Amino acid sequence: MSGVVQAADETWKTDDHFLHPWQDVTAMDRDEWTHLEASGGIYVRDSNGNQLIDGPGGMWCVNVGHGREEIVEAVADQMRKLSYFSPWSMASTASSELAQRLTAMTPGDLNTVFFTTGGSTAVDSALRFVFFYNNCLGRPEKKHIISRVNAYHGSTYLTASCSGKMREKAQMDMIEDTIHFLPCPKPKDRAADMSVEAFCDEKVADLENKILELGADKVAAFIAEPVMASGGVIIPPEGYYKRCHEICKKHDVLFIADEVVTAFGRLGYYFASEDVFGVTPDLLTTAKGLTSGYLPLGALFISDRLIEEIKSVSNEPRSFFSGFTYSGHPVSVAAAQANLDIFENDKLLEHVREISPYFANALKSLSDLPVVTDVRVQGMMAAVECELDAGTPDENRDTGFTAKVDAICQELGLLVRPTYNACVMSPPLTITKAEIDDMVAKLREGITRAMQVED
Amino acid sequence: MSGVVQAADETWKTDDHFLHPWQDVTAMDRDEWTHLEASGGIYVRDSNGNQLIDGPGGMWCVNVGHGREEIVEAVADQMRKLSYFSPWSMASTASSELAQRLTAMTPGDLNTVFFTTGGSTAVDSALRFVFFYNNCLGRPEKKHIISRVNAYHGSTYLTASCSGKMREKAQMDMIEDTIHFLPCPKPKDRAADMSVEAFCDEKVADLENKILELGADKVAAFIAEPVMASGGVIIPPEGYYKRCHEICKKHDVLFIADEVVTAFGRLGYYFASEDVFGVTPDLLTTAKGLTSGYLPLGALFISDRLIEEIKSVSNEPRSFFSGFTYSGHPVSVAAAQANLDIFENDKLLEHVREISPYFANALKSLSDLPVVTDVRVQGMMAAVECELDAGTPDENRDTGFTAKVDAICQELGLLVRPTYNACVMSPPLTITKAEIDDMVAKLREGITRAMQVED
Repeated sequence: MSGVVQAADETWKTDDHFLHPWQDVTAMDRDEWTHLEASGGIYVRDSNGNQLIDGPGGMWCVNVGHGREEIVEAVADQMRKLSYFSPWSMASTASSELAQRLTAMTPGDLNTVFFTTGGSTAVDSALRFVFFYNNCLGRPEKKHIISRVNAYHGSTYLTASCSGKMREKAQMDMIEDTIHFLPCPKPKDRAADMSVEAFCDEKVADLENKILELGADKVAAFIAEPVMASGGVIIPPEGYYKRCHEICKKHDVLFIADEVVTAFGRLGYYFASEDVFGVTPDLLTTAKGLTSGYLPLGALFISDRLIEEIKSVSNEPRSFFSGFTYSGHPVSVAAAQANLDIFENDKLLEHVREISPYFANALKSLSDLPVVTDVRVQGMMAAVECELDAGTPDENRDTGFTAKVDAICQELGLLVRPTYNACVMSPPLTITKAEIDDMVAKLREGITRAMQVED
Repeated sequence: MSGVVQAADETWKTDDHFLHPWQDVTAMDRDEWTHLEASGGIYVRDSNGNQLIDGPGGMWCVNVGHGREEIVEAVADQMRKLSYFSPWSMASTASSELAQRLTAMTPGDLNTVFFTTGGSTAVDSALRFVFFYNNCLGRPEKKHIISRVNAYHGSTYLTASCSGKMREKAQMDMIEDTIHFLPCPKPKDRAADMSVEAFCDEKVADLENKILELGADKVAAFIAEPVMASGGVIIPPEGYYKRCHEICKKHDVLFIADEVVTAFGRLGYYFASEDVFGVTPDLLTTAKGLTSGYLPLGALFISDRLIEEIKSVSNEPRSFFSGFTYSGHPVSVAAAQANLDIFENDKLLEHVREISPYFANALKSLSDLPVVTDVRVQGMMAAVECELDAGTPDENRDTGFTAKVDAICQELGLLVRPTYNACVMSPPLTITKAEIDDMVAKLREGITRAMQVED
């Protein structure tokens, strides 16, 4: 990590035994990191005692805010009772109860949960379940997966292969023959003479054309984040998600909703697919907000329909030979339960639905800055796009400016997670209007100063 | 899960919203599970109040035993201080300190850690790093992976594809063109007229022959558990592991030690590769005993040599575009620190080295039972093989008998994890001689009774 702030103090120091995600291996011994030590509410504190607003909410995950004693107590209680069980041969009351609670909350007939350790393993399991399903149904050729440019689905070999951030594939191997990418449905990038409605038609047609091109008998699944998160908070046009679902149904292609980011309140509902977008997916993956990031946990939800179809075609056992040592870990499960209790007790979904227009307006007020070319907001996730290189395709945009904004904002007391040319804001959902004002004022100051030091 | 014990009480009940690892999807609404609720020391307690010795140690993971207050306190303290940070853009003091402590303990020059959420993600990351390394070095063709029949390396698409439990691949898709399996180095299965030494020569030659067959310029890595765990505690002949390492060095093939099970005391040392087998691998993966299963955490260790080679060939950035929301999670890290403190304070490695001959002798005493055809023990991991179908290849052996043993042992107060035709014993490392005697007596009784009900 580099920036305007120099290593004059201990806040920025090397951390050369810990290879961080996405880190440049050749710079490991030179990279300097801000070390965090404490947190509470919407704030974190670094090792120099500086207090910073957690703009990215950890990484789209600290939904109930930092330092919730309810979660600490629940975790300690469960760990004292039963810290581990093997999900291969046993059940635990704690985990079974969370399975019941969650499947009662999921859309439609998504009544079976397969627990994992995070988003990557949830998506990897979803795709492996799709392969398994089609093998059980006697159609081993139906295996191709359709994803989208700028999608992010994880960091296992399979899920990284389904991620569509093309620049981040350099030096990395990917599965290429069975995974296909549609153009990104980013309304801002449409042609100048094209309406948003026509653009939506075109993006929906991209999906159907790809299915027809590959042959519907070859296409197993379409996977989509309702709002693309790390691709830059890309919000497809109204109706796009629902129409894509209809195309999938028409061609017997499974629809996987990747709600790792959008579930658990980020868009004002436990699950966004049905409540925000009117879609009941065949499979749904989630993580992050499920425990508000306090402990690793992910989940794949599977529809009854798929389970029943597998049952209907065979009298033989059909084992899903997959699972993790930490599937349904009782302590992670306890964190999730306490997290959900906070959602209920604090009426957090209602709070999000009430405050998100204020959040949107506050961020959109930054549009008067000359460098800000787009402010995208849905629920409590936002991207403030800073475009110094107008006309450049997303893939080639410079990260230098937003990294500068991040470094300056850290001096001002705000964490920004620069994502290419966007400053991402995804704060704890507990944020108040006064805190939003403070956050946006710091971001305004950071962008303004970065424009002045721009070389 | 089925067995002799019937659903006469609430202990066995359906759990039909939670798809368990390896579960038969067609039987989900009929499967009955023992629900665990509490644990302490080497014991767990089910929802009916029955106390059971935890024979499998969770699943090769509860190394320091259940209910350690030191871990509970450390986890609660860390969670109160800082429950989450994003490893993409920040460091946390807690995580950096564990990285320092662990890399000071690892063999040779394995001085960089890439944290993950468990064993599957550690191995998936290791293999992705190998691909990345060879791409950086300009040899994109060097990508084939060699594994072994009966190996287990994980449940992501890539790691499952490297697992060699062939029967468990039915209905599951696997990568096949670049992953290759050597015959299992199980001494018991050698030809009657072959010495163990000759068998070892043959298994080592299998590796070299496969490298030569594929072409050393095509082979990226050999991956091996020092002792195969879920394949049935298969202990290769003396010298095998070290000689395989030498073959790999000779042909410039990376050696990945999968120490998910064998690290953190299971074989009497923090890492078994060097201290038990005299090998310094190029990459080493671990999980399980790292936190004693109290929280999800995995780790991949990378040698300085590989990092330096990547640096030496390029002046361009070489980012390892991979990582998890929960990479180096501060709370999982705190569990690992407290776990390591227990190892030091309790002198647990010394305890294992002192007690493991007693453990081995106690289990080997079961050899007088006519159905017991092999007792394999190394350190504190053991398999008691019960062979009703002598001469049948491992792949086709019946699990029915050991499942019966497990069900009867549960009535007697012992959990057994049946693995094909073996009863696996991998108890908490804190176990005493008296507890070993009790465990083995219960197992003897269970096997004896199961022989009587055998139909």
